[in-house]
Amino acid sequence: MLSSKHEKVMEIAKRRGFIWPAFELYGGVAGFYDFGPLGTLLKEKIIQKWREYFVIREGFFEIDSPSITPEEVLKASGHVDHFVDAMTECKKCGAAFKVTDLVKEKTGRSVEGKSKEEMESLIKEHEIRCPECGGELGEIYDFNAMFETTVGAGKKKIAYLRPETAQGMFIDFKRLQRYARGRLPFGVAQIGKGYRNEISPRRGVIRLREFTMAEIEIFFDPENPTHPEFREVASEKLRLLLATDQERGTEKFTEATAEDALRENIVCSQLMVYNMARAKLFLTSLGIPEEAIRFREQTPGERAHYSSETWDVEVWTEGFGWVEVAGLAYRTDYDLSRHAKFSKEDLTMFVQDEGGAGKKILCHVVEPSYGIDRLLYCVLEHSLSEENGRPLLRLKKELAPVQVGVFPLLKRDGLPEKAREVLKKLRSEKFITEYDDSGSIGRRYARADEIGVPYCVTIDHRTLQDETVTIRDRDTKDQIRVKIGNLPRVLQELLENRVEFQQAGELVLPKSKAESTERR
Amino acid sequence: MLSSKHEKVMEIAKRRGFIWPAFELYGGVAGFYDFGPLGTLLKEKIIQKWREYFVIREGFFEIDSPSITPEEVLKASGHVDHFVDAMTECKKCGAAFKVTDLVKEKTGRSVEGKSKEEMESLIKEHEIRCPECGGELGEIYDFNAMFETTVGAGKKKIAYLRPETAQGMFIDFKRLQRYARGRLPFGVAQIGKGYRNEISPRRGVIRLREFTMAEIEIFFDPENPTHPEFREVASEKLRLLLATDQERGTEKFTEATAEDALRENIVCSQLMVYNMARAKLFLTSLGIPEEAIRFREQTPGERAHYSSETWDVEVWTEGFGWVEVAGLAYRTDYDLSRHAKFSKEDLTMFVQDEGGAGKKILCHVVEPSYGIDRLLYCVLEHSLSEENGRPLLRLKKELAPVQVGVFPLLKRDGLPEKAREVLKKLRSEKFITEYDDSGSIGRRYARADEIGVPYCVTIDHRTLQDETVTIRDRDTKDQIRVKIGNLPRVLQELLENRVEFQQAGELVLPKSKAESTERR
Repeated sequence: MLSSKHEKVMEIAKRRGFIWPAFELYGGVAGFYDFGPLGTLLKEKIIQKWREYFVIREGFFEIDSPSITPEEVLKASGHVDHFVDAMTECKKCGAAFKVTDLVKEKTGRSVEGKSKEEMESLIKEHEIRCPECGGELGEIYDFNAMFETTVGAGKKKIAYLRPETAQGMFIDFKRLQRYARGRLPFGVAQIGKGYRNEISPRRGVIRLREFTMAEIEIFFDPENPTHPEFREVASEKLRLLLATDQERGTEKFTEATAEDALRENIVCSQLMVYNMARAKLFLTSLGIPEEAIRFREQTPGERAHYSSETWDVEVWTEGFGWVEVAGLAYRTDYDLSRHAKFSKEDLTMFVQDEGGAGKKILCHVVEPSYGIDRLLYCVLEHSLSEENGRPLLRLKKELAPVQVGVFPLLKRDGLPEKAREVLKKLRSEKFITEYDDSGSIGRRYARADEIGVPYCVTIDHRTLQDETVTIRDRDTKDQIRVKIGNLPRVLQELLENRVEFQQAGELVLPKSKAESTERR
Repeated sequence: MLSSKHEKVMEIAKRRGFIWPAFELYGGVAGFYDFGPLGTLLKEKIIQKWREYFVIREGFFEIDSPSITPEEVLKASGHVDHFVDAMTECKKCGAAFKVTDLVKEKTGRSVEGKSKEEMESLIKEHEIRCPECGGELGEIYDFNAMFETTVGAGKKKIAYLRPETAQGMFIDFKRLQRYARGRLPFGVAQIGKGYRNEISPRRGVIRLREFTMAEIEIFFDPENPTHPEFREVASEKLRLLLATDQERGTEKFTEATAEDALRENIVCSQLMVYNMARAKLFLTSLGIPEEAIRFREQTPGERAHYSSETWDVEVWTEGFGWVEVAGLAYRTDYDLSRHAKFSKEDLTMFVQDEGGAGKKILCHVVEPSYGIDRLLYCVLEHSLSEENGRPLLRLKKELAPVQVGVFPLLKRDGLPEKAREVLKKLRSEKFITEYDDSGSIGRRYARADEIGVPYCVTIDHRTLQDETVTIRDRDTKDQIRVKIGNLPRVLQELLENRVEFQQAGELVLPKSKAESTERR
């Protein structure tokens, strides 16, 4: 019996092919997961949706830079010095731990950003010992969380796997501003792998050593931190958890519209709050309910070395409580000024002000950064429901990894051949399909429901007579009949919500008939 | 003056934002490139096309596994021992070189797979010295081309960045065969980064240290290496360069249909030759002309340690001659048997033969493996043409990174505001658009032609009166006028080749009129 929602999600995720522990054949390595066939499709759809929301609609430029990054870049960015975790090892068994994890697990308190001394005294005070063997813990020291490697033979060059995709965008600033033809603000996006050599990853896909990020750097004139379309989101309600409230030990929300959050100086700029509102809209478009979304302001101790204000976008999950799925950081001119200094290149930009006079400025940056793997988990958890004791994944239709199930009612009488024909037709029209001919039709519908297939097409004896098939709706279980010739068009319209289910059929089957079909 | 086609392609690629040298701000690192905004869009479209061709149409399962791979996996796969380059260093300046490159450059001969002794005698015979300083070269030794790193703190674990995505699929075999529900053959695909620590990469995006691969492993019963849809490609003509002919020193093609190549035992199996034909169809769908495609059989010395027959799919380029863009390897049961041995797990599969009797088999594998970055270069080179001395990128419409240009005819009279409205409408309908209001309309058309924008929409004074805009066709320069309300539909139909250009307009502009607009 699976007790928690997390266990239920992961059981389906593993059994059906969403998420698998990586390197299982060799005993696995913590912090690494594979996305199976359904997980890969779902991830790709979340990425595609993100692209539509940000790259296409906002007109941002997406680039793709290497994950291997030479040391100079990460020295300039501060990661070589500051991208560190406080760590301790067990004196007895040698196991290594991240101090913030140990303290949080024992005391529930976040000590992110606290000094080594404070952490050490907390470990003593709460008598924290090695969770593996009970041994005494050693001294706390800094551990750089980047994976290191070397490039080339002969004279080798030190490099790291990028801890964020952001630096690839900062160091291309000269080319990017030329691409933007001097207009501000402009946004640059990048989707790709990020790496963090976690000391002891223990929260499944929530804390990975290799993860997929989708990041945006919005370059703007610090004297004009506005967004031309702010009005469109001004009245969007945001649930905010302020840093001051957290320091007082309360988790009380402040609810404010984007406009009010700006007016009351809760958020530092229009550009920042615009992106918070867009983040909320994006998450709800994935099917995350509004009440499961909050914006948590990072406390000064928590913030990364480059940020002067950061809002974590968090989603409530039964498995892990509030999970950070995105961060919105005001990086100021930190990165550009550091790269200008280290590379000795001029990274200012010439802009014309309203009056037409020119000036040279160093752009400031607002960075929305999304964790795709975490989003995927949250989407799964929030989509999973039960119906008559059977799992039903109520994914948004546009996210469903398999769009159409194709089933011959029976394994004989020429029905499989006809079903294969339909399958081939749908595949050539780019539908993502799954063919299933094993077990009763009811079991096949149930299997399809479990992975959120919105529509199942069944080929039965009548198909052979009049070239019609049934389409069954995942959520209502209603069925309609349509001609095979119209099937691709009808499915497309249904998937895009351009037609009502009942209206799409040439013949609507009465519910009682549909139900009896399910029970066969 | 740019002499070669390669230089012309790269000049546009850099200036317009397709391909940029990575880490330029810090002097660059050989073998690493960034894809700029246009390159990223183009790459994404090539990947999407690949997915349609293979994952969706063939019904393969796509998975996504980590790029960091623990040592055990790559020991079992043979990469720790065999993924090596013969290397030599200059005794004077210390520069390191790949021996096969040095010999090929000096003599034009491929010594891939030759023994150390043979290579050393060739270096002596041809008096090959350090290309950088003319110094004497040192002894030849093996250099493992994988990037090494370590995972975890405390007891660190050796790992490598994957040299191919394939191993992630082999080690998931147990889960994958369950997903396939015991049916053979089944194909698994993976698209992602691969890494190779090249000693001295010197061929631009053709030889990268970090690259994007798209690979497929087709698992099949060695007693039944067939494909159910072979008939569909049986008469496809293939241009084959046989290993025996290469060994004889000729580059003469053998032309054969897929069917004949199989019948005459030129290719080892139906499954293999089916995938060769599909490779050809995929490449032509990207706009690569048939006569620029050949299949080169690797000579025994060249073949990777896991392969018993390999066909390189090569595309002719002016920049680099024949470029390998894909490889089709018959990996036999090499990988599964090695992983079974090293992991001590049973990786056989239970299948029923035609008679219904069951048997346990170890699957064999045919692997089509594509290099996405190289494909992108080839697509660019083959698309670039000239028209009246101006560059024109004749990309297939479905590959064009920017689908629609939006131009206000003038920068005043309310035209920019109207154009922004049209832009916003198109973006909300997910068109990839570019707004351009700088310079004459003729210059803007020319800029759009250079990056292959298939359709440009111009907003002029008449737009303000009757809500119509012009659409201009990249290839014919014809123009039509359509109502803004119909614009998304018309553009969609044009992009999908569902309507003739002249038929799509409510008003077709005479050519002379269109031309005169261009000259303004």
